[in-house]
Amino acid sequence: MKKIINKPEDVVEEMLHGLALANPAVKHSKGLGVISRKEKSEKVGVVSGGGSGHEPAHAGYVGKGMLDAAVAGNVFSSPDPERIREGIDQANGGKGVLLVIKNYSGDYMNFTMAADLAEMDDIEVDYVMVKDDVAVEDSTYSTGRRGIAGTVFVHKIAGAKAEAGASLPEVKAAAEKAIKYLRSMGMSMSACTIPAVGKPGFTLNENEIEVGMGIHGEPGISKEEMKESGEIAKILLDKILDDYEASGIEMKGTEVALMVNGLGATPLMELYILNGDVQAYLEEKGIKVYRTFVGNYMTALEMAGCSLTLMRLDDELKELLDAPSEAPAFRI
Amino acid sequence: MKKIINKPEDVVEEMLHGLALANPAVKHSKGLGVISRKEKSEKVGVVSGGGSGHEPAHAGYVGKGMLDAAVAGNVFSSPDPERIREGIDQANGGKGVLLVIKNYSGDYMNFTMAADLAEMDDIEVDYVMVKDDVAVEDSTYSTGRRGIAGTVFVHKIAGAKAEAGASLPEVKAAAEKAIKYLRSMGMSMSACTIPAVGKPGFTLNENEIEVGMGIHGEPGISKEEMKESGEIAKILLDKILDDYEASGIEMKGTEVALMVNGLGATPLMELYILNGDVQAYLEEKGIKVYRTFVGNYMTALEMAGCSLTLMRLDDELKELLDAPSEAPAFRI
Repeated sequence: MKKIINKPEDVVEEMLHGLALANPAVKHSKGLGVISRKEKSEKVGVVSGGGSGHEPAHAGYVGKGMLDAAVAGNVFSSPDPERIREGIDQANGGKGVLLVIKNYSGDYMNFTMAADLAEMDDIEVDYVMVKDDVAVEDSTYSTGRRGIAGTVFVHKIAGAKAEAGASLPEVKAAAEKAIKYLRSMGMSMSACTIPAVGKPGFTLNENEIEVGMGIHGEPGISKEEMKESGEIAKILLDKILDDYEASGIEMKGTEVALMVNGLGATPLMELYILNGDVQAYLEEKGIKVYRTFVGNYMTALEMAGCSLTLMRLDDELKELLDAPSEAPAFRI
Repeated sequence: MKKIINKPEDVVEEMLHGLALANPAVKHSKGLGVISRKEKSEKVGVVSGGGSGHEPAHAGYVGKGMLDAAVAGNVFSSPDPERIREGIDQANGGKGVLLVIKNYSGDYMNFTMAADLAEMDDIEVDYVMVKDDVAVEDSTYSTGRRGIAGTVFVHKIAGAKAEAGASLPEVKAAAEKAIKYLRSMGMSMSACTIPAVGKPGFTLNENEIEVGMGIHGEPGISKEEMKESGEIAKILLDKILDDYEASGIEMKGTEVALMVNGLGATPLMELYILNGDVQAYLEEKGIKVYRTFVGNYMTALEMAGCSLTLMRLDDELKELLDAPSEAPAFRI
């Protein structure tokens, strides 16, 4: 295992320490895995988090216009309720806190338990569950669909709504609308290694990819031969578009936000090439891309691969997406 | 070779096409490898470029406050003078153009030839050479030191100076000052594969790293056993700090801009951990970090590894570094 780390058991705290040093607008609650905004305001707080290894998610999305706090667990492992309770405290400005939870069993359990703890202390807490991955219905770590890269759009929408002074139910409603119109799907070309484990969790052959693989290496739909970018775009988009159709959501003639996300080890060159193919295919389908995001937004350590996310937009979602964000990993 | 591409011979044009689709502020001069700002102004133009495979360098640095145009050659191969001539044209607002050249023999030859061509057409052109890599004195592709990640700081300084309305000699002087105070050094943990070649250019053993390796896989100083992050920080910084000393540049008590750069396949988690160790060591040495940049700024396709860059700052460099930039890969 060649990784730029010190002791495997220290990776999360050391990572958060290094992140806070690079971003003077946030503070690191040491030993608690929490990154939060230094400047507190009276608006609704927005908190997310989950296992580490998905950087810049979630701590890179803490900043004015996006998250107020991010809570990190160990690598690929949900943070415990006490940590999330700390994150809620850091984000609470007196108007309540919305939790944005990726749909994994551990996250659901721990975040909702933390919400209960906070409510005992008279902090109003509500939550939304992100289930954007159309690849599989249930998975290794989830009942129902997994939450993946589309979660970043939910952070943005909820964060912008909160920044605009909306109430907790209003912030939740905006996040729910984003989630309703959100679909993602990924594929991976290599495994990744949890530092404390020291060896890859699975293997793929020389010319093999896994379509629909999760961001922890959970199985996807099928193992296939490596394909050209144009074909990858179609495979992932067809599944996403079929799913919109099955949900009764009309896409032709609408506008979308598009995210072409890298899983950690895929160079920007490849993501940009894929973006060209994705946009050509969407145009063919009569779907207009309103705004495009290409980069590493929700990773799986050093996994090679990508995911595509679409969010169908209306005027409110466009305005919230375009609102300023000072989060270092999502500057608008 | 598992890469998200179509035909290997099309990677550069397809990549630039996908990049331009993601950034409505730029346009792509098709077939010429040039990305430039749509909005032209009367200020001094700043142009950079070089071989592809270093994304987001250089096209990701095109934007208000930074570059006016970036010129891309084939992967790891300098763009020809006609392309650079096109980049100069795109950037020329009537007040002259500064070329920021990374010190490789091909780039030097082609960029200066393009400058001569532009001057025949009465465009005032000048240039600076970036030689920030302290690892080796001469290398496979350079006479003298190589230009690597520190080049991004030069783009920022020259771009901000030009945006402020400075003359060509003033923009050049600011860039030269940045270069004078700039030092970088990297190490790699894996090879990378040029798409048209299809196999890695070299190999490293299971637990081996190469210290001082260039961004095209050119040899560095030594092959060594993999080390902890804290030790990597010291090895790279000691070489950089020794070099400042040898140049008679006092560092103790000064402020620096710091870049912790990933080479393409190294996850942000590792770069943040390294950042913590780098900052601890700099503090020990009495050097204050004024501003920190952690991310993939100058890559080598899917190479795993990192580089560190320091730029000693004075009041002018601080102001230019802090000036707004709308370049997507370097938002300030």
